[in-house]
Amino acid sequence: MLGVFDSGLGGLTALCELRRLRPDLDILYFGDTARVPYGTRSRETIIRYAREALGFLVSRGTDAILVACGTVSSVALPHLAPAFPVPLIGVVEPAALLAYHTSKNRTIGIIATEATVESRAFETALHRLGRVTTRSLACPLFVSLAENGFTSPGDPVAREAVRHYLPPLGKSGIDTLILGCTHFPLLAPQISAALPGVRLIGAGEAAAAAMVATNPQVGHGNLEVFVSDAPARFEKEAERLLGAPLPTKVQKYAL
Amino acid sequence: MLGVFDSGLGGLTALCELRRLRPDLDILYFGDTARVPYGTRSRETIIRYAREALGFLVSRGTDAILVACGTVSSVALPHLAPAFPVPLIGVVEPAALLAYHTSKNRTIGIIATEATVESRAFETALHRLGRVTTRSLACPLFVSLAENGFTSPGDPVAREAVRHYLPPLGKSGIDTLILGCTHFPLLAPQISAALPGVRLIGAGEAAAAAMVATNPQVGHGNLEVFVSDAPARFEKEAERLLGAPLPTKVQKYAL
Repeated sequence: MLGVFDSGLGGLTALCELRRLRPDLDILYFGDTARVPYGTRSRETIIRYAREALGFLVSRGTDAILVACGTVSSVALPHLAPAFPVPLIGVVEPAALLAYHTSKNRTIGIIATEATVESRAFETALHRLGRVTTRSLACPLFVSLAENGFTSPGDPVAREAVRHYLPPLGKSGIDTLILGCTHFPLLAPQISAALPGVRLIGAGEAAAAAMVATNPQVGHGNLEVFVSDAPARFEKEAERLLGAPLPTKVQKYAL
Repeated sequence: MLGVFDSGLGGLTALCELRRLRPDLDILYFGDTARVPYGTRSRETIIRYAREALGFLVSRGTDAILVACGTVSSVALPHLAPAFPVPLIGVVEPAALLAYHTSKNRTIGIIATEATVESRAFETALHRLGRVTTRSLACPLFVSLAENGFTSPGDPVAREAVRHYLPPLGKSGIDTLILGCTHFPLLAPQISAALPGVRLIGAGEAAAAAMVATNPQVGHGNLEVFVSDAPARFEKEAERLLGAPLPTKVQKYAL
């Protein structure tokens, strides 16, 4: 069974991609809704929260975990993965690889949470692949916009938030932009409109594809979804985001 | 020594009012920045978080605590206050009292977090005072806007968020509006612009005034500020919000 972990809703974008590519996989999703958002916390706290949440997924018998959270992938995985009992697949390397091969001019942008941008994890992964120019930018409000439903393509609040954050990227010459937080694909139409001609790479989707490519498991298409708080609220928000109800009841596991 | 508690930055609006009214008081502030925001969590989780945070303030020797958080005041205080070792002063009753006496047409609005609105705490307090018509509305994104610095009077993101949430109040005939979350006074200019002629009552300021009126303590004007995560970030955000640096270094106490 595969685990999928996010601080909240964002990882659903990766979960959907996983299930689209491999509907037969057995998946256990965990969202830490009692402590979302992670991206404004300190490194120490992000590592502590991630260790607890990943520990729950291991305790339920997952064989590998997709860390579908840009903040945890960037800040906590380098610390936790080496000694962890099961493989942890983060979003950083898969997204960097896909962006590197997508970009024609080797000028790549990254938008993410504050903690992710400060970690420079995406830049480090990109520079390891070859000569690239990078430009990264923290867009912390995007997480709240996604978590609170400001995601319709014409939403004026999201439009103004995009106008607030993205102008420096518009002038930077990037042809590819990594959405380094798994909440951000929910704002993709708005982001695209502000950056015409720029290819967007969703970190969660890239990681889901990488996980499928490297994981030979087969299953029966079972899905279980747990959150650390307010499962009814999560069901409602997930339905709004996905355009359809989750195919399973959301259960609570308090950390 | 008085304790002041909030989930994050919002309680600073009450702290400032306390210090303006009584610069001699000794105050210990605690912001639970490792777990902010509270307003989208379940009742059970809000009570647990509040009990832990208030326990810290008691352990440091506070004689009374101003709960400068609308969500905790509404959801957790009725549960925690009766058996608590020191008096807990919440924002609900002081704000309701002030609004009741401010309103001429006895038609009063409340904006707050989801958890506060669901609790109906402000309505209950208002109806206990006399015949009033109330109208309440959850504005969850306002917390994130305040926490992420979208607070300048002309900010276009805040303007659109105000336009998104407030129209139902504009048509409701209210002449007084309780800002039932202590983050919301940071958006007061935007809220006022959307609701001309409506008097705004900041719940934190009302509670600070009530606390001063009922508390005979004297002190030396000492101030200590603790947060559960990322003290440097808190110092930076507090300076931006208050227009001046906090007069003391922010310290960390992880719950």
